[in-house]
Amino acid sequence: MMTTVDERPVIRRDQRGVATLTLNRPRQFNALSEEVLKALGGELSRLAHDDSVHCVVIAAEGRAFCAGHDLKEMRANPDKAYYQELFARCGEVMQRIVQLPVPVIARVQGLATAAGCQLVASCDLAVAARSARFAVSGINVGLFCSTPAVALSRSIGRKRAMEMLFTGEFIDAEQAIDWGLVNRVADDEALDEVLGELTASLCAKSRVALRTGKALFQRQLQMPLNEAYAFAGETMACNMLAEDTAEGIDAFIAKREPQWRHR
Amino acid sequence: MMTTVDERPVIRRDQRGVATLTLNRPRQFNALSEEVLKALGGELSRLAHDDSVHCVVIAAEGRAFCAGHDLKEMRANPDKAYYQELFARCGEVMQRIVQLPVPVIARVQGLATAAGCQLVASCDLAVAARSARFAVSGINVGLFCSTPAVALSRSIGRKRAMEMLFTGEFIDAEQAIDWGLVNRVADDEALDEVLGELTASLCAKSRVALRTGKALFQRQLQMPLNEAYAFAGETMACNMLAEDTAEGIDAFIAKREPQWRHR
Amino acid sequence: MMTTVDERPVIRRDQRGVATLTLNRPRQFNALSEEVLKALGGELSRLAHDDSVHCVVIAAEGRAFCAGHDLKEMRANPDKAYYQELFARCGEVMQRIVQLPVPVIARVQGLATAAGCQLVASCDLAVAARSARFAVSGINVGLFCSTPAVALSRSIGRKRAMEMLFTGEFIDAEQAIDWGLVNRVADDEALDEVLGELTASLCAKSRVALRTGKALFQRQLQMPLNEAYAFAGETMACNMLAEDTAEGIDAFIAKREPQWRHR
Repeated sequence: MMTTVDERPVIRRDQRGVATLTLNRPRQFNALSEEVLKALGGELSRLAHDDSVHCVVIAAEGRAFCAGHDLKEMRANPDKAYYQELFARCGEVMQRIVQLPVPVIARVQGLATAAGCQLVASCDLAVAARSARFAVSGINVGLFCSTPAVALSRSIGRKRAMEMLFTGEFIDAEQAIDWGLVNRVADDEALDEVLGELTASLCAKSRVALRTGKALFQRQLQMPLNEAYAFAGETMACNMLAEDTAEGIDAFIAKREPQWRHR
Repeated sequence: MMTTVDERPVIRRDQRGVATLTLNRPRQFNALSEEVLKALGGELSRLAHDDSVHCVVIAAEGRAFCAGHDLKEMRANPDKAYYQELFARCGEVMQRIVQLPVPVIARVQGLATAAGCQLVASCDLAVAARSARFAVSGINVGLFCSTPAVALSRSIGRKRAMEMLFTGEFIDAEQAIDWGLVNRVADDEALDEVLGELTASLCAKSRVALRTGKALFQRQLQMPLNEAYAFAGETMACNMLAEDTAEGIDAFIAKREPQWRHR
Repeated sequence: MMTTVDERPVIRRDQRGVATLTLNRPRQFNALSEEVLKALGGELSRLAHDDSVHCVVIAAEGRAFCAGHDLKEMRANPDKAYYQELFARCGEVMQRIVQLPVPVIARVQGLATAAGCQLVASCDLAVAARSARFAVSGINVGLFCSTPAVALSRSIGRKRAMEMLFTGEFIDAEQAIDWGLVNRVADDEALDEVLGELTASLCAKSRVALRTGKALFQRQLQMPLNEAYAFAGETMACNMLAEDTAEGIDAFIAKREPQWRHR
């Protein structure tokens, strides 16, 4: 019997409203090589115009979630223009996660280092295996994790972000949940079960509401308070006019389950 | 014997420098109906020009603190202009809390959901009963809690705010204090005692200092660091010239209790 | 035998890449008098142009870290222009810490109150003795800690900062680490050992990377996300071209220790 191994750098699988993007370079600890970044960016672009999903999971094959950039590839191209393009592309991919119309969840096992840790920080939500560990360790090789710092400093407290960035030391999953870098920690063998509870919760929601919320949350964060309220008030008035919202509220009042149209 | 029941939607009671605004629609779980929002907004407006108080408490009658907007009333007015005005008014009330010249404390029992949770997040300080629970649950009925997200995302960590907003799930009082959404958790029967310790602490302060601080804190948060320091330095120089401050420092140096003029 | 006592208000000592600035007015609990502020500002200015250090420690002689401004001196100069200059100078010193090219660590024993607590919040990292206590207690004397609020509200959660500022109450070292105001808590007798582990970790890093990171971290925090990524991407591309970074990555790939040029 023959088996075909899927060699694509990032594999998308859809199941009941959840699109899972799996980084598929386990022997390279899923390093964000040009090839992987391009594939991940492409999948995220396609998802930006895909109305069929309730949420996206970013997962990874093998023992590590993601070990950051591919250092060998970087050293093989000692050229400023190359690096500028590489980091611009990486920043673009991270911002696509933030701008995606639906929530994005990181599923973290093993190591999440440097740009791998940035990937976790950039996702809206994160579920980690108890044995997972996180570091922004570029400083250990003389390369400060500058782009990871952008995501990390917006995700956890300032002194904690600086400690991770300047020492390059690992934190474990317990520390990560205590600091707010991840939302849930699961025993290693229960990682998919705990992730499944979270995706099931999101899939039970109206897609109109999920999409409204994702767009609103990220944009209002960058506004002063009065502008944020004006924008959120307008957003919520529009959300009230959606068919699903009328159904949701009527179901709530009648104490029955809502029947979403956009399910 | 006859008893008169106070039917006002929001009741103000003053006691020793503390103005308590009590939401008084316990059978509707103190939902922020038009009537309640208007009354609460009116009381906050009056307090904005009231020199007699050291702090304000927002409390609620009955088993729940506040269940958010009045969904029945909203469904009875399926009109965009109506919703725009409703959410604009709600945002206005929340911003009045932020802009009030003195600190505002939420006293939370039972449920604080959707705009009720926003009310807690908008207050400067919060004391919760151990059995209190918090959620931004609009997503369960298809209505993402957009305006609550404005307050919540400025009060707790980003991933935690998104988890609450996208799942709609409850957190308990222990989680709320761990995440910084409330300042103190009291056994249910000791809620007023713990609240009383906090208000007594504020009432022992100079009103000049409380008012200086409240205005300063909120404004400087929205400034870049150098502007924030320039503004805070100027504010502090003015504060030094207040009669109460001279008395406070002299009392401190002489190791005696200060006698505030503006008490 | 004669001993000479060093009477300088701030003493700089350098050891293996670590410059330690020690506040040296223990009998005044190292209050930030004009004299101390001027000396501290001067040392920080010199360090801003000093390529020889990997990191800076701010420490203090005696039983207290720093009790904030010198209230007696302030009361002896009841003049608005005097206060404006004093607070402007203090804000300037705090911002020099933020702008210093290398990470700054607070070493905290005893009390850190008012501007002393601001000093801790302004440092990039902080190590505290288990018996250390922190407060922004100006409100107790009628002087709201306005400039400390700038640093504190950017260091810990909003409601926690307001609680400290409005009540003036102390938090202990455990609370401080739980809230993210300090990074490590050490048994009192092990304070220098724990500090030494942290400075040793920083001293093992490339100075290019430390300096790149410190400048990047503070600046990008004040930018919107897309600008922050553009700036960080450019910074990281430049960082890749440094000699030390090539050595660091090559050493990593070859599984040997890096030999930094800028050590």
